[in-house]
Formats: sequence, structure tokens, C-alpha cells
Amino acid sequence: MQTLTVDLGVRSYPIFIGQGLLQQNLLLPYVKGRQVMVVSNETVAPLYLDTLLQQFPGKQVDSVILPDGEAYKDLQHVNLIFDALLEKRHNRTTTLVALGGGVVGDMTGFAAASYQRGVNFIQVPTTLLSQVDSSVGGKTGVNHPLGKNMIGAFHQPQAVLAATDVLGSLPERELSAGLAEVIKYGLIHDAKFLDWLESAMPALRARDPEALAYAIYRSCEIKAEIVAQDERESGIRALLNLGHTFGHAIETDQGYGNWLHGEAVGAGMLMAANLSAREGWIGEAELTRVERLLIAAGLPVAPPETMSCERFIELMAVDKKVIDGNLRLVLLQQLGQGVVTADFAANKLEQTLICGQSLGRIG
Amino acid sequence: MQTLTVDLGVRSYPIFIGQGLLQQNLLLPYVKGRQVMVVSNETVAPLYLDTLLQQFPGKQVDSVILPDGEAYKDLQHVNLIFDALLEKRHNRTTTLVALGGGVVGDMTGFAAASYQRGVNFIQVPTTLLSQVDSSVGGKTGVNHPLGKNMIGAFHQPQAVLAATDVLGSLPERELSAGLAEVIKYGLIHDAKFLDWLESAMPALRARDPEALAYAIYRSCEIKAEIVAQDERESGIRALLNLGHTFGHAIETDQGYGNWLHGEAVGAGMLMAANLSAREGWIGEAELTRVERLLIAAGLPVAPPETMSCERFIELMAVDKKVIDGNLRLVLLQQLGQGVVTADFAANKLEQTLICGQSLGRIG
Repeated sequence: MQTLTVDLGVRSYPIFIGQGLLQQNLLLPYVKGRQVMVVSNETVAPLYLDTLLQQFPGKQVDSVILPDGEAYKDLQHVNLIFDALLEKRHNRTTTLVALGGGVVGDMTGFAAASYQRGVNFIQVPTTLLSQVDSSVGGKTGVNHPLGKNMIGAFHQPQAVLAATDVLGSLPERELSAGLAEVIKYGLIHDAKFLDWLESAMPALRARDPEALAYAIYRSCEIKAEIVAQDERESGIRALLNLGHTFGHAIETDQGYGNWLHGEAVGAGMLMAANLSAREGWIGEAELTRVERLLIAAGLPVAPPETMSCERFIELMAVDKKVIDGNLRLVLLQQLGQGVVTADFAANKLEQTLICGQSLGRIG
Repeated sequence: MQTLTVDLGVRSYPIFIGQGLLQQNLLLPYVKGRQVMVVSNETVAPLYLDTLLQQFPGKQVDSVILPDGEAYKDLQHVNLIFDALLEKRHNRTTTLVALGGGVVGDMTGFAAASYQRGVNFIQVPTTLLSQVDSSVGGKTGVNHPLGKNMIGAFHQPQAVLAATDVLGSLPERELSAGLAEVIKYGLIHDAKFLDWLESAMPALRARDPEALAYAIYRSCEIKAEIVAQDERESGIRALLNLGHTFGHAIETDQGYGNWLHGEAVGAGMLMAANLSAREGWIGEAELTRVERLLIAAGLPVAPPETMSCERFIELMAVDKKVIDGNLRLVLLQQLGQGVVTADFAANKLEQTLICGQSLGRIG
């Protein structure tokens, strides 16, 4: 087992990474009160809920099962968590435990931030995407019909438990979606990690435990380093949104849940790389390298055919990164170095948006 | 005009108190971005919305009008604020402005805490209760069918504007409800202020501007002092809940909005005083003094006749102050000195709960 500490002063917390961690009673020290509410979904609960419920001897342990999918990540379904907490009379010393992917984590985190104006929570992410992304950094929230993640809070967990063996049951598509975020860390922050990913991609897709553990560790480490510098996302943290402005537009257009978040981010990262190449910051060879890595990870490399340039602009205009009317994007100054900037030509953005299947070249 | 600063380090903010403040362009310096969303309700908007909308020249100013009343203080109606923000494309530099009583303030504050994980907000309270209570301290939130204020956040405003002239249009019952909270500050913290209230009560009920301004200033000052010591309610701040555990039970039993919050707190404070007298901390003469002051303020001095002891216990058991099974109450060590304690006899609490119309004596 490896342990990584996210350094946020009094809000610091550990991430445990390794095999078989669900059975090791690691979480009990992070439960302060006498009540625990485990939140899971219909897919994950049958696999791991019983095991997790055993980990809190001496506590009042309750659970609530949500429907599975981004389509249910809304205020109405967060209210099911509040219902369960109040029906079981959980008080403000309770601890919520999120057992599931990013959707369960985001909803549980927001419920924890809001229940009685804030209670503790623990993350037990069961997808690669949530292990490397949504379990680190304290962002919680739900979607609104007019925009993704528009309602939420910053709320840090007490601990995160990333058990690599649970990835064995993950569908192929979700593994690829998680790899999109892993690739993102390489693209924005670490060219060497990107090199390693190119060689390790076959092992990762074959779910080699050691390769996965390293990918998770290094991804969390990069994210933790960035979050520690900028907990409330006023600056450098926005780098973590590489591909997300484009990706959110795709998800909104297609309806939440039809494209997986990681798939949309994968296509979005290639769009960001394409625009970066048009600005001359990276070369066409590097752009092609990004495309090949995404393909190797099993990710889409083009937005939906039905999405026009106008539709992208319309949806990107409500993005959180719109600062007083200026669209800011995360682009690549080089491979391994992201930059948040509004300094790109509008016509080059339009050229990127109409690329369709040809994002891997600019000629 | 008087200005009081609530001292919370980087989250410090001013409260402006006085006549005619709605017309004085005081708020513009507290709007950081270029967008303003004023949230009001059907009762207050026709009176003051147009005036307030004039106070933000050069900004994109939008508004959303909620139905009036505690019965609408829920997640569903907070969602109307999110709808308006997204429809008008407000970004994370927007400022929400709450124009109304405590319900509008609590809902707007929670919307501000949650919209895009937190945006700025300003309070313009239009009732005595919200001027002396909910506009100070950063508590925001909504009700759940199983408990009051169970969903919310701590979120401090950028500024509060308490215009005393708007109290001229306040219904008699709401003025009395506000006076309940004013009396509370005397009971928990300031015996001299309590003396002043006894002599000034006729002037306050006649809406004498100077008397009201002093009552608001001193109430906010006491609350600000207590909140500054304990922003997240881990200790002394709980004193501000004098009468609230009993009062919340009354409100929940009667259905939100049938008893005004201040009315329920008024009866609840007398219940707390009654229990304090049974414990021998205050004398019967002082208990009677509390009852007389509440009567002079036009407040109820008994819970609803239909509420049994068992019903109180049932509803008080989900209160936020239930710490791991021990019911803690705010009681009076003497007039002007509140105490948060679980150190009272259960049978004395039961005696208080069955007092009915006789809370003003213990013999």
C-alpha cells in the first residue's frame, strides 16, 4: 500500500492506494462520530457494499443506494441522501462515505458540504476516473439542465481509499475514460509521465496492477500538488480543466451520461491540442502524438458529428471559465506544460471546432 | 448612518444601519464583477425592487421573484435562483443580492454558496428579524420536510444594508417576531440591554426610528461579537439558539409558516427560562419578568395547545444540537447570561413541556 498526503493545512488528508484495501479497516480512525452513512449506486452496491459496511464496527451504519449514472447527478437525487440522513436521524457528527465513481463522489461530497451546513465525508472511489480525479481536490456538486457542475461546494474529505483491485470489474469503456484523465496529468504537467504512459498503455489496458497503481499514484500526486497551491481555483488549478470546456459542451449537447465524462474530456483534450498547434505552440508531430496516445487508450478523437461550431460556442459561453465575457481555455505551451489563456485567435478556435474527424492534424 | 464591522479576518464585512439607505448607492463598491442578480419575493419586490435595481449603474442587473413565506424555503425554490442565474448566463464573478426577510436571505445565501461552488452576495434585509439575526453570521440554508434548516452552508456576505425606514411597512406580527430576537440578545448576553428594552418596548412597537436603530445596532453588535469568536458554531455561538430548539419543534409541528419563526422563538425562550427557573438558576420573579417582556412585545407565551410532551421530545430529537444522543439546550444562568448545557434533569424538562399556558411560573 502507498499513502499520499494531500497537503491543505488543517484540511490535509491521506489517499491510500493499493490492492485489497477494502478489507483492511483503514477508515475507522477517520470516523469522528458514532454514525456512518454509506452512499453508493445500484451497480457498485451489489459488488462492494457489504464488505464496506463491515469496516465500521461499533458505529451506527446506514446506507442509501442511488440510481447509476450522470443523468441522475442532480439536486433531486442529492435530496435522497438528505432524506436518508434525516430518516435515520444522523446528526452533525455523522460521516458520509461515498462508494462509487465520480458521480457518487460528487453527490455525496455536496450532500456532506450541505447537510446541517457541513459534515465529514470519506471517498472510496471505484472507478479509475474517480480514483485519479474526483476523489482529489474537494470539488463537489451536481448538474443543472443548463450546465454541468453548476451547483456545488468545495469540501475536502477526511480520507480517500483507492483500492486497485476494484478496477478488475470496471467496463472497458470506463477504464478508457479514466485513462483520459491520467493522460491529462502528463499533458499539463509532466512530459516524462507522458513518455511512460505511451510505453505502459498496453499494460494499463490489460489492468496490470503495478502499472495501474503507479498511474494512480502519480496522477494523484500531480493533482494534489496543483490543488495544494490553489485550493479554491483562483489560478493554476484551472490547468486541471484541460479538455473540459470542450468536453462539457459535448456532454451537455449529448445529454449527460451518453458520452462518459472521460470520453468527452479525451476528445476535448485533442481539440485543445489542435488549437495549441494552430497557435504554433506545439508542432504537428506532437499533435499527432497526442492523438495516437488517446487512440491507444481507447478514447474518441473527434466530437459528435452532429455538433456544429455554433453549437460549441453557444454551450461554451456558459462555462465557469468565462470571466467577464472573455473565454479562457486551457491550452498546451508544449507537451507537459499547460497554460490557462484567453490569448488565442477566435478564428483559430473556429477552425478547431469544425475539424470533425481531422483533429490530429492542422495542415 | 451607523456602520458596524463584523470582524472575520479576510471575510470581514460592514453592516450599514439607518434611514433612507436604499437610495444612497452604498452597495456598488461591494460588487466585484459586472453582473448582479437581485433575489426578492412577491411581497417585497413591489415595494423596493425598482429602487434597488437603480443602485448598480453600469452592471448587468437581473432579478428573480420567489413566492413569499417559510413554506417555500426549500431546495426546489432555491433551484429557481439557479435557473435565473443560468438563463441570464451569470458567471462566477456575479453578485447575488437578497432583498427581503430571513427566508429570502437564507435562500439567496445558500444559492450564492452553491452556485458554481460559491459566488459573492449582499444582504438587504427588509424585516426587523432579518436585520438583527439572519443577516449577521453567514448561516444560510433551506428546510427539509423532516427538519428546519437542515440543508445549507456557512457563507459570509460582502455587505449588509439595514434600512430602518423599510420597517414602516412591516405587519405588526412580523415586528413582534423581530423583537423576539432582539430580546434574545439581552437574555443571553446583556442585562443592561434587557433593562433598556423593558423601558423602550412601547417606542419600539410604535416604530420610533431612533429606538429601532439602537435596538438593531446593539443586537447586531452582540451577534457580531459572538460570531467573531466562533464562526463555525463549535462553541459559544450556540448561545444564539436560545429558544430555538423548542421553537423549531413548534414550527415543524405546526407546518412552516403558520407560526412565524420569531413567534416560535418567543415561546421557546420562555420555555428555556421556565426550565432554568426549575433548575434554580433564575428566580420566579425573573421568569415572570421574561414573560412580561414577551407579552409587551406582542409575542405568544405558550406553545400550541395541541402539542404534547411526547411530540416535543420526538421533534427535538432530530435537532442539530443533539450531540451523540445528548440533548443540549441553551438555558439561562441568570438574566443576561446564557449557557449551553446538557446538565438539566429530564423530569424538569418534561415539567416545562407540559406547562401549557403557565410557563411564566413554576409553583
